[in-house]
Amino acid sequence: MAAVVFSSFIAGAAGLWKIVAHRAVAGEPLADAERLSVEAGLAAPASPAASAWTLRGAAGHVRYVVSDEKVALGRVQPPLGREQATLAAFIPIRKSAAWWELAQDERRAILEDRSRHIADGMRYLPAIARRLYQSRELGEPFDFLTWFEYAPEHAGQFEELTQLLRSTEEWRYVEREVDIRLER
Amino acid sequence: MAAVVFSSFIAGAAGLWKIVAHRAVAGEPLADAERLSVEAGLAAPASPAASAWTLRGAAGHVRYVVSDEKVALGRVQPPLGREQATLAAFIPIRKSAAWWELAQDERRAILEDRSRHIADGMRYLPAIARRLYQSRELGEPFDFLTWFEYAPEHAGQFEELTQLLRSTEEWRYVEREVDIRLER
Repeated sequence: MAAVVFSSFIAGAAGLWKIVAHRAVAGEPLADAERLSVEAGLAAPASPAASAWTLRGAAGHVRYVVSDEKVALGRVQPPLGREQATLAAFIPIRKSAAWWELAQDERRAILEDRSRHIADGMRYLPAIARRLYQSRELGEPFDFLTWFEYAPEHAGQFEELTQLLRSTEEWRYVEREVDIRLER
Repeated sequence: MAAVVFSSFIAGAAGLWKIVAHRAVAGEPLADAERLSVEAGLAAPASPAASAWTLRGAAGHVRYVVSDEKVALGRVQPPLGREQATLAAFIPIRKSAAWWELAQDERRAILEDRSRHIADGMRYLPAIARRLYQSRELGEPFDFLTWFEYAPEHAGQFEELTQLLRSTEEWRYVEREVDIRLER
């Protein structure tokens, strides 16, 4: 997409999404909360009284996707907010300094040539809708916030996708990952 | 660099750098001011009473530079703050929606294969020190803030470099560019 979409993920007592599971895959977990509200724009970090935590990100242009992949993705990528997609996953990730020291071609080689992140992810479309937010250059504690929405009948496919990605060479550069599951 | 460096460029009555020239190359100019202060961190946008404008950016990992180029750049890139570098240029740039809609390989092809942005820029090292800040996903009015420092004897080389870049295919995607020259 050409325009940047800013979103704030506010965990606390209110919000459309009920948090049903929360675990740290790598590094520290987040504070527990009952619900998650996804709001447009860059919210000010909320007061501790009002929320457990607030994470913010910007969804903008593609970073690694090349032309053929962009066309293929455009054909099958579903929108967020589908009526049947009552389950969601919110997975904030931080990669290591070693990842960010790599040149663009080295990161692309690890991400796609050797870890097949884009191609494998595409196999789970259109069942699983996905949006990737960049957080690193907002001074946030995570580099990326990934948001997924799917129908209950595709929950097994989503587990398969996350397990596949976590077994890759790319994932050796993940130093913090929190996996939060939600339903509405 | 692996860590993200945040900087705020605050134009007003105070600051190390005296603004000696200001023109819009494309699109709207900025408000006039006497001096520019470059401060670490993401300053809150200042009140109109305190500053003419504040622009903020994040300098992080490379976006287009590949491995060989990164090694070559690492050998010749000078640091900011050299004693003899008493002149500076601050050039905020915004590219068009069409640029941001391109895939990564298409942007790289325009930027380097056809416009030689990295190779031509390298010819002016180590005379001209440079830092590129990303602003787009901070919700700022520009996509990039570029900062250059050089000694008076290299001012001619700097003019040559900016003219070279502005004549490229890449520059057809620039929809706003402001060129501010400074001395300290």
